[in-house]
Amino acid sequence: MRAVLKFGGSSVATIELMKKVAEVIIKRKKLYDELIIVVSAMGKTTNQLISMAKEISLYPNKREMDLLISTGEVVSISLLSLILQEMGENSIALTGTQAGILTKGTHTKNKISDIHTEKIESELALGKIVIVAGFQGFNEQGDITTLGRGGSDTSAVALAAKLNSICEIYTDVDGIYGIDPRLYKDAKKLKQIDYEEMKEMAFLGAKVMEPRSIDIAQNHGVIVYVAKTLSDEEGTYIMNYKDGLEDKKITGIAVSDKVIMVSMKRIPYSAKLTAELFRDLAKNEVNVDVINQNPSIGGNMNIAFTAHADDLDAVNEVLDQFKVKYPVVNILRIDDVVKVSLIGSAMRTQSGIAAEAFEVLADNDLEFKLVTTSEISISYTFDRSKKDKVIEVLAKHFNV
Amino acid sequence: MRAVLKFGGSSVATIELMKKVAEVIIKRKKLYDELIIVVSAMGKTTNQLISMAKEISLYPNKREMDLLISTGEVVSISLLSLILQEMGENSIALTGTQAGILTKGTHTKNKISDIHTEKIESELALGKIVIVAGFQGFNEQGDITTLGRGGSDTSAVALAAKLNSICEIYTDVDGIYGIDPRLYKDAKKLKQIDYEEMKEMAFLGAKVMEPRSIDIAQNHGVIVYVAKTLSDEEGTYIMNYKDGLEDKKITGIAVSDKVIMVSMKRIPYSAKLTAELFRDLAKNEVNVDVINQNPSIGGNMNIAFTAHADDLDAVNEVLDQFKVKYPVVNILRIDDVVKVSLIGSAMRTQSGIAAEAFEVLADNDLEFKLVTTSEISISYTFDRSKKDKVIEVLAKHFNV
Repeated sequence: MRAVLKFGGSSVATIELMKKVAEVIIKRKKLYDELIIVVSAMGKTTNQLISMAKEISLYPNKREMDLLISTGEVVSISLLSLILQEMGENSIALTGTQAGILTKGTHTKNKISDIHTEKIESELALGKIVIVAGFQGFNEQGDITTLGRGGSDTSAVALAAKLNSICEIYTDVDGIYGIDPRLYKDAKKLKQIDYEEMKEMAFLGAKVMEPRSIDIAQNHGVIVYVAKTLSDEEGTYIMNYKDGLEDKKITGIAVSDKVIMVSMKRIPYSAKLTAELFRDLAKNEVNVDVINQNPSIGGNMNIAFTAHADDLDAVNEVLDQFKVKYPVVNILRIDDVVKVSLIGSAMRTQSGIAAEAFEVLADNDLEFKLVTTSEISISYTFDRSKKDKVIEVLAKHFNV
Repeated sequence: MRAVLKFGGSSVATIELMKKVAEVIIKRKKLYDELIIVVSAMGKTTNQLISMAKEISLYPNKREMDLLISTGEVVSISLLSLILQEMGENSIALTGTQAGILTKGTHTKNKISDIHTEKIESELALGKIVIVAGFQGFNEQGDITTLGRGGSDTSAVALAAKLNSICEIYTDVDGIYGIDPRLYKDAKKLKQIDYEEMKEMAFLGAKVMEPRSIDIAQNHGVIVYVAKTLSDEEGTYIMNYKDGLEDKKITGIAVSDKVIMVSMKRIPYSAKLTAELFRDLAKNEVNVDVINQNPSIGGNMNIAFTAHADDLDAVNEVLDQFKVKYPVVNILRIDDVVKVSLIGSAMRTQSGIAAEAFEVLADNDLEFKLVTTSEISISYTFDRSKKDKVIEVLAKHFNV
């Protein structure tokens, strides 16, 4: 049996930590016949590289950005391979290109379209531990590409799917909690979580794994195990829905500070104009989250929407153009908001959970700005000042 | 007309310096229709990466070393391209692999075997300034490779050869001097220097350019211009021999501190044993410089040889094995030696220059350890304590 093991940036932040990661790898080698290791860049390397580029340009060319930040993972795979070799193991480090990770899409936000696993397979056949640079690949033009937020998880799960293996994600938390223990001290760890719930939690701000990677895991039936790098504690399995989980109304609560909210007032009522705004946002690869549109006085309308704070530059670019074209529109960007989401597969079958949540909030005078729901979640946007209170009240009530 | 412009690590050590380099590039664009830029890693980046690897292993795997240190140039090409774009230029950054620089040989010391210039040509045809990572390429296995000492110069000259262009090397000195001005304050700058002399000077320790790159320039008739990055002062042309240079007995003096000398005594006289020693050194890619072998008492012999200090690890490895196999041999490594070389094409036609040099040294009581000559040079190995005196005496006498 083979396994893909993924170690994030904080697990490989220094050479000392990398040595500990190597020990984990060697331990896992007793359990699995073949190992593929995916690593992120060391610690804050990627951010440092981005800062250098931002010193040069506010809107740096994304092809060159990808090339620049791809170096972070190349450094970590080389060093980890040297460490394993020094410990007597047989290993080889492969860049995204060398590992055959073909991508398509926009630079800095590419998607994996295929993996040509011949090189990996041949190195595994030679008995080597294969170390692959996470977060990166190449496109059909031969450019080096990166996969955007949480890209190393995506690399790991995609490799596991293609190589028919389990995927173990080692991180700085010891599993998946119903709510981030840093936000709520009584948070409870989950033994397992359904793909759908995990995706929803990740999508809504839980920082453990990127929804895209869960999507790939679900589509290919890859079992994902999330655990803490240097701990013997049992982690959490992400896999298909099992009986017994339905007892809980709410599986988890996700909180996202990385939200920007844009409020636009006095927009002349016109479907064309709204379409133009969201088309421009889409063109700039802004993932618009909640949208609220309502008529206002004088035949005008108001629009409010939220987006991920990482898309701030792109949002500003679109808003700046919009302001020039439609000077009459009043545009206000509010950055001190927070999104709190309740997630639970039970919402599919049990009615009344949403009503119960609204009631709890009302009982505690917690007024929200925007609300949106999906099949298995409800998300509220609040003033950031209300964050702690909201978490306390909801986590306690739903026992997450 | 097109030109390859090469900028070394100290010219691109910071983003501020890179911006100045970009200004130089834009200035040269007025003179040339097409520009190919070759850059090294920023400042001490390569050394920092090597130190990280050395923290892990005394003899790190060279394939992974190449992968690791190749990231340095990728960072600098990406940033330089972003700077040029921010200044309104159309540019593209290419790794050694993307630029089609195919290499062969041993990792960390590869040689360029061919350059597939299709990508560069097509980007030039689009009007772009093409920025290529110096010092690196790829081999037929798809591994990333590096070119060893002075590799970026080699990249630049090989590209100029293949792209039929002049090659301008920008560095932190304002041309080629008869002797390094840091060693002798009255050193004179040369307007031009012959390929052969330049190679010999570089080979013998002058730090301006790597002999290998001059070799390629000579073989392909590439004119190389060496000048200071941020200076309007005229530099030095490296090109075919011209009349008038013969007036000088000695064109230049090269001094190398990076010499190790090994003295081996009480070697049982055996051709097999000597052959074994030098074969092992060659296998470990040690470039042995001067060899001195002479019989000693009791049918034994003594051997002394010098090598480049960069090969210290490899030399030690061979000597350690040798000590185990032949414990009777007395091996002494002397590191505090210096090699001083006189170089001049005139030696080909004028006799008596060597005799004159010996006389000057004898007159000043400057005793040397080893001496070796080539067609156009004489090299002496001295105790490092004699270095300053030797330079003073020879530079003054031969007016370099």
